[in-house]
Amino acid sequence: MDKSLKIVVIGGGSSYTPEIVEGFILNYDKLPIREIWLVDIPQGEWKLNIVGSLAKRMVEKSGLPIQVHLTLDRREALPGADFVSTQMRVGMLEARAWDESIPLKYGVIGQETTGPGGMMKAFRTIPVLLDICRDMEELCPDAWLLNFTNPAGMVTEAISKHSSIKSIGLCNAPIGMHKWLMKEYDVPASSIYTEFVGLNHLHWITQITVDGESKLEELVGSGSGYSAKNVPQMEWNASFIRGLGAVPSYYLKYFYLKDEMLEEQIEASKKDGTRAEVVKRVEDELFELYKDPDLAEKPKQLEKRGGAYYSEAAVNLMCSLYNDTKDIQTLNVRNDGILDFLPNESSIEVNCVVTRQGPIPLSVTRVPEAVKGLIQAVKTYEILAIEAAVTGDRSIALQALAHHPLISSVNTAEKMLDEMLEQNRAYLPNFFPAAEHSNV
Amino acid sequence: MDKSLKIVVIGGGSSYTPEIVEGFILNYDKLPIREIWLVDIPQGEWKLNIVGSLAKRMVEKSGLPIQVHLTLDRREALPGADFVSTQMRVGMLEARAWDESIPLKYGVIGQETTGPGGMMKAFRTIPVLLDICRDMEELCPDAWLLNFTNPAGMVTEAISKHSSIKSIGLCNAPIGMHKWLMKEYDVPASSIYTEFVGLNHLHWITQITVDGESKLEELVGSGSGYSAKNVPQMEWNASFIRGLGAVPSYYLKYFYLKDEMLEEQIEASKKDGTRAEVVKRVEDELFELYKDPDLAEKPKQLEKRGGAYYSEAAVNLMCSLYNDTKDIQTLNVRNDGILDFLPNESSIEVNCVVTRQGPIPLSVTRVPEAVKGLIQAVKTYEILAIEAAVTGDRSIALQALAHHPLISSVNTAEKMLDEMLEQNRAYLPNFFPAAEHSNV
Amino acid sequence: MDKSLKIVVIGGGSSYTPEIVEGFILNYDKLPIREIWLVDIPQGEWKLNIVGSLAKRMVEKSGLPIQVHLTLDRREALPGADFVSTQMRVGMLEARAWDESIPLKYGVIGQETTGPGGMMKAFRTIPVLLDICRDMEELCPDAWLLNFTNPAGMVTEAISKHSSIKSIGLCNAPIGMHKWLMKEYDVPASSIYTEFVGLNHLHWITQITVDGESKLEELVGSGSGYSAKNVPQMEWNASFIRGLGAVPSYYLKYFYLKDEMLEEQIEASKKDGTRAEVVKRVEDELFELYKDPDLAEKPKQLEKRGGAYYSEAAVNLMCSLYNDTKDIQTLNVRNDGILDFLPNESSIEVNCVVTRQGPIPLSVTRVPEAVKGLIQAVKTYEILAIEAAVTGDRSIALQALAHHPLISSVNTAEKMLDEMLEQNRAYLPNFFPAAEHSNV
Amino acid sequence: MDKSLKIVVIGGGSSYTPEIVEGFILNYDKLPIREIWLVDIPQGEWKLNIVGSLAKRMVEKSGLPIQVHLTLDRREALPGADFVSTQMRVGMLEARAWDESIPLKYGVIGQETTGPGGMMKAFRTIPVLLDICRDMEELCPDAWLLNFTNPAGMVTEAISKHSSIKSIGLCNAPIGMHKWLMKEYDVPASSIYTEFVGLNHLHWITQITVDGESKLEELVGSGSGYSAKNVPQMEWNASFIRGLGAVPSYYLKYFYLKDEMLEEQIEASKKDGTRAEVVKRVEDELFELYKDPDLAEKPKQLEKRGGAYYSEAAVNLMCSLYNDTKDIQTLNVRNDGILDFLPNESSIEVNCVVTRQGPIPLSVTRVPEAVKGLIQAVKTYEILAIEAAVTGDRSIALQALAHHPLISSVNTAEKMLDEMLEQNRAYLPNFFPAAEHSNV
Repeated sequence: MDKSLKIVVIGGGSSYTPEIVEGFILNYDKLPIREIWLVDIPQGEWKLNIVGSLAKRMVEKSGLPIQVHLTLDRREALPGADFVSTQMRVGMLEARAWDESIPLKYGVIGQETTGPGGMMKAFRTIPVLLDICRDMEELCPDAWLLNFTNPAGMVTEAISKHSSIKSIGLCNAPIGMHKWLMKEYDVPASSIYTEFVGLNHLHWITQITVDGESKLEELVGSGSGYSAKNVPQMEWNASFIRGLGAVPSYYLKYFYLKDEMLEEQIEASKKDGTRAEVVKRVEDELFELYKDPDLAEKPKQLEKRGGAYYSEAAVNLMCSLYNDTKDIQTLNVRNDGILDFLPNESSIEVNCVVTRQGPIPLSVTRVPEAVKGLIQAVKTYEILAIEAAVTGDRSIALQALAHHPLISSVNTAEKMLDEMLEQNRAYLPNFFPAAEHSNV
Repeated sequence: MDKSLKIVVIGGGSSYTPEIVEGFILNYDKLPIREIWLVDIPQGEWKLNIVGSLAKRMVEKSGLPIQVHLTLDRREALPGADFVSTQMRVGMLEARAWDESIPLKYGVIGQETTGPGGMMKAFRTIPVLLDICRDMEELCPDAWLLNFTNPAGMVTEAISKHSSIKSIGLCNAPIGMHKWLMKEYDVPASSIYTEFVGLNHLHWITQITVDGESKLEELVGSGSGYSAKNVPQMEWNASFIRGLGAVPSYYLKYFYLKDEMLEEQIEASKKDGTRAEVVKRVEDELFELYKDPDLAEKPKQLEKRGGAYYSEAAVNLMCSLYNDTKDIQTLNVRNDGILDFLPNESSIEVNCVVTRQGPIPLSVTRVPEAVKGLIQAVKTYEILAIEAAVTGDRSIALQALAHHPLISSVNTAEKMLDEMLEQNRAYLPNFFPAAEHSNV
Repeated sequence: MDKSLKIVVIGGGSSYTPEIVEGFILNYDKLPIREIWLVDIPQGEWKLNIVGSLAKRMVEKSGLPIQVHLTLDRREALPGADFVSTQMRVGMLEARAWDESIPLKYGVIGQETTGPGGMMKAFRTIPVLLDICRDMEELCPDAWLLNFTNPAGMVTEAISKHSSIKSIGLCNAPIGMHKWLMKEYDVPASSIYTEFVGLNHLHWITQITVDGESKLEELVGSGSGYSAKNVPQMEWNASFIRGLGAVPSYYLKYFYLKDEMLEEQIEASKKDGTRAEVVKRVEDELFELYKDPDLAEKPKQLEKRGGAYYSEAAVNLMCSLYNDTKDIQTLNVRNDGILDFLPNESSIEVNCVVTRQGPIPLSVTRVPEAVKGLIQAVKTYEILAIEAAVTGDRSIALQALAHHPLISSVNTAEKMLDEMLEQNRAYLPNFFPAAEHSNV
Repeated sequence: MDKSLKIVVIGGGSSYTPEIVEGFILNYDKLPIREIWLVDIPQGEWKLNIVGSLAKRMVEKSGLPIQVHLTLDRREALPGADFVSTQMRVGMLEARAWDESIPLKYGVIGQETTGPGGMMKAFRTIPVLLDICRDMEELCPDAWLLNFTNPAGMVTEAISKHSSIKSIGLCNAPIGMHKWLMKEYDVPASSIYTEFVGLNHLHWITQITVDGESKLEELVGSGSGYSAKNVPQMEWNASFIRGLGAVPSYYLKYFYLKDEMLEEQIEASKKDGTRAEVVKRVEDELFELYKDPDLAEKPKQLEKRGGAYYSEAAVNLMCSLYNDTKDIQTLNVRNDGILDFLPNESSIEVNCVVTRQGPIPLSVTRVPEAVKGLIQAVKTYEILAIEAAVTGDRSIALQALAHHPLISSVNTAEKMLDEMLEQNRAYLPNFFPAAEHSNV
């Protein structure tokens, strides 16, 4: 691997692209990139052109010998790739709006990474990712696939089960937690160690040290938790957090504060529409900015977009894999006995030492008794939903949904599933084999 | 053990007693009982006298050399016992009414064996059972403790964790299923084999054979399930049952049809009051009957009471233990690796070969992927609730409740917990150390 | 399965056949057999004719409506079979003599079911058994394959890993133990319960009850153990047996008394030749007897042959499978978590409840700490040897042998392996692809 | 812990002490030591005085503000300690000579870290270490105990099972392997990554990378392995190593080349006496050197002693614990699921990320199928031997020895055990309660 690198970004027309390109430029000394290929689908061509032009201006300004290529044909981009990164959204924001709005009609939380919405996103995304993997197996079988596309844990598990491609799932929540701690304690990243236990978007932080001293009790004692822009700022119940003895992910509010979060969603959707619609407006503004031929850097406004640090997480991971740094990162990888109550082949989100041969998970020093049930319950849903995504079996889809902790009636689940599958028909060739469908 | 037997029934004043006494009389050839000791607490003395007199008349009519003793002091009864059976209810039906009614105020299902109600029953019951075990360790350390007291699985796990007494938890649901299949297929019990997977009141039947031929697909295909008198007759969703590929316990309606069951409870409580109140009226009638000095047999009306086949299950188990029959019964025992995702020391409900040395669990041939999450979620609650029951730690109690699948808000859980603990204060010495409290 | 049965015996020309035919005749009321097919290879035709004629005379004398067919083409025999039983010996007694004599030259125990000899037998046998399975998959996919061919545990594991045929491995040691206990305590079989832990020919009996009372301490305290005719009558070390707290299989003398057993083998081979040669003389006598046209029953002399109760074990198992008796038998089946330190897909020898759907293993109540290492060591060898048998990979064969506990030098292992493979060349098409080779 | 440190060295009179003192001096910037306490027993007073004086001269020459204290009373030394390091030898080299010579009389390898010799060393050492732990629990409960005393894995497991003291076992083999690779590939330590699988003195190296590129195939292909001065330089069998696909520890020659190593031992003992006697001569020379009042540094000759890099390993570990460096070291720690076929509470030798909170094991990416049996076999012996050491139960000691892979007859084991226990009587108060015995 001691050579200049070729990187392929699937979903290259995304509004996030300037961030990752900035990351490549800033880390060129550690990551000697020769080519960046931005790939998108025909429907995304206009975005690809705008954001691709910006990327080219950014690279040109940097003076680095990096070539930026744009293409609508991923098979043109993949041969010889070292890293393939995915940041696409099958069905685009329109489909996200369905994920968020249809469940509300049934009194169920609408969210694009878990529950009925997350399942639909998995159904749309997993077959496309597996198609990409099949191309990679042929064209760049040794490349690393770094997957940001949500539900990132489920997608990673699907790839691990159905492809030989080496894949790692990535989320910005762990790095966000670190950034928050760095500010809170005014220390550099190297001073901080956090232990993550759980799944993607379903993790608990069970240890936090600053320069080796535990701050967990202090942070848990305050009864608060870290948060993120794209999740409503609901307050945690302080005595619950103290009893839990761990800092829950902000996504866990969907489970621990189901009633309150549902109510909040209903209110917000009345006021601002779905989160998808809010994001759509932000994106439209961003692309207006990106069009400016004088712009040759990542605009500040991108930070409002929600996926803060995504690009930093991705570039960090590529650097560590390439340079065999053996530093610790929190990643989505095969379980292989780390959480002994889950199957070996399931994906979990866990600390790993990153070597050039791949991430090596650290064992977890403590799994709070209280969290095992919820982890297993969501993993049960994930396993079934992955199987449904791959087979297009509606009966398995119903089992997946009916066993998801956000669902409180099998009967409701069945009706909601029918409506959501129908709505997503164009993106679900496995469920509707004869249907016309879009694809990357 | 080749000798005449001494049996102690804790909660001997229960309305069920005539059933178990009838069982002893009918099975005397297999179970040569010398003494039956019926034990109750002072508050239950009047019931003990009524039902004890009936028991004596029943034995006398049988002409068998069995002595029936009544006592309010269990330490008088225990020495030399071979079997101790528990069928008591700490707090009596009054406390059950709280279990069933308080949760409804918070929009949560009120049920005496699971959820907030079940947790309170566990809190009231487990310390009393452990007191009994401490007496047994001293007075009859080799006796078997057969526990019918709900939540039977949790009580069994608590005893296994905190006592050296050999204990088996028993439920009438498995035998009820067998009786239903015997009628359905018009075959004797020996023709039927069913595989149970799960926990007490949270099991799935994953195999059913009649004379060796599987009837599972046929039964699952019909989309129905077996049922019981004490659970509302809600219809199952047929396509869900087919996809599940197993017959769920009727108690699983509380989880799979949470919304519908809650609504039904609210309706029923408006019309008839809680189930506790209904049972109270049945009991009052029974005791009126029992008083009749001419009655010397189990009255027909007892069958309405809900715990059908309880006594048959108990007598069957004693017979098999005593006679080393090696037949198969479904019992609550230590997991020890049978369900590999649960702790070894947890109780599960599973088929066992019953030998004089104790039950030996059979491995389960299939655990449907779909059910693991719910089993783990409820087991998480059970482990925490047992710990809270033993320690009286309110913070652990909140964790237990907050992680129960019937709960949809930690905030609600906290308020409800406060009210329920306060209401049960008299029966919770571990939580309220200085309080006056009742006991067996 | 409620119909008359068709049974195929592979290796039907074996001297054991009169025993199994006797078993079929004696159990006709429980096992309504319509056809018995005795199958052998051309080299065994003369034996098949002799023993087949005797079988026909035995059936005729019984007056039962059973047809006996003889064939050299197993594909003629298999269609519609209900049970296929194997009792063949690839390479016949000549190859057994190699298994027993070559290792002695290297100072290693020569034994046909374990160590270098057992590995060679596995190499000769497993590919043939897998060929039979492939025929069964096509011609009688629902038939049960009852495998007596040693090494029975490894063969069963190989079939479970490489075929869809339902297979059970059988050994006469457990039934022999029961017969011995019946005599020792003068009780019927139903009074006895024994718990077996381990692998085929590598088991320990960890519980023995007679009418429910444990006799383990008494038997272990005596420091002796049960034995069999085909294993040298070496005395156990009494204080070792007491400390072990379990009764070891007599095959365990090869491991616990390696030095003494090796010396004994060397002595015996000087005096009587190998065990194979002794057996050859017994067989020759038997076939002389079988030729007698007036003989229409199993001759007494067969009992000297060594495999006592084999036929009883086989017929018992068929009866239980056919009649769904749910009795307990000790069988070689997939581990699936029973011994939690071994892979799920490995075969173990363990108590099972036998139903028409197949055997269901009982959990083991106790695994003595002392025995785990030896079980794992031999299982490691077995896994590698099975892989070598299937692939013909000499390097894996060396790993298998080098890690077998009877081997004390990798260098010796390599030389011995070379000689043994060369000697067995005609029977090892996987190792010598171009070679002429014999087959069933 | 942000303070100057107090270090206690048990067995401070050892000839190794100058090495560890040199390490402290060289690493003072990372490890601000205030006090070093060298502790020994009365029999070792003369050595303590010689080596202690040298230590004082070394520190004085360095000009660092470190105080060196000598004492025969460890309870004087322990209060407030941060790190306690053990490098003692109960019974001194005399007892080692027994470990090495008595087994040879029975045709068994004599080695002080495994087999009968290792077991005796465990019996002498474990009770003394547990006594030290009891003092630490009282006087410095938060200190880390770094244990170098062999058998280091068993001692660590014994402490983990019978004490609350945080303990880590250390061996110089892993660091020796790294040093060898650094020389072989001419790279700094940071370029090398090796994955260790197994137990102390029973490990395999299953991955070796230099700057991220795997060198395993190359090293295994050469059929050689790394080695050490204190193990005979027997050649490996090249085709065996290639098939194994991992680099075995040089201690594994005792198992894989049992016959050859035994022969070598017999030859060597005829020529030079036991290894203990050789070491004794080296030590005598060393102490002669140490006496020189002009010597104020570690003499070169110490390197011949055999425990190369021990002190470097110890100082590295203290530095990483103190500074929360999160680097990777190979240590003996609780298994906790890393090797899923071993008990959680067993010690294994495995890569760990070292934080101030303690070492966090990395999961192992590959366990060669071939090595599981030998690991389990030796762990079985270790578990039993630890139990025997703690209880003094001779029957358990026989089980331990009889199940050790170096033993080939239970009868021999029994006789050898009797002789060895008798010989070690003075150091085995648990086995000979009334006996006079030596102690630290």
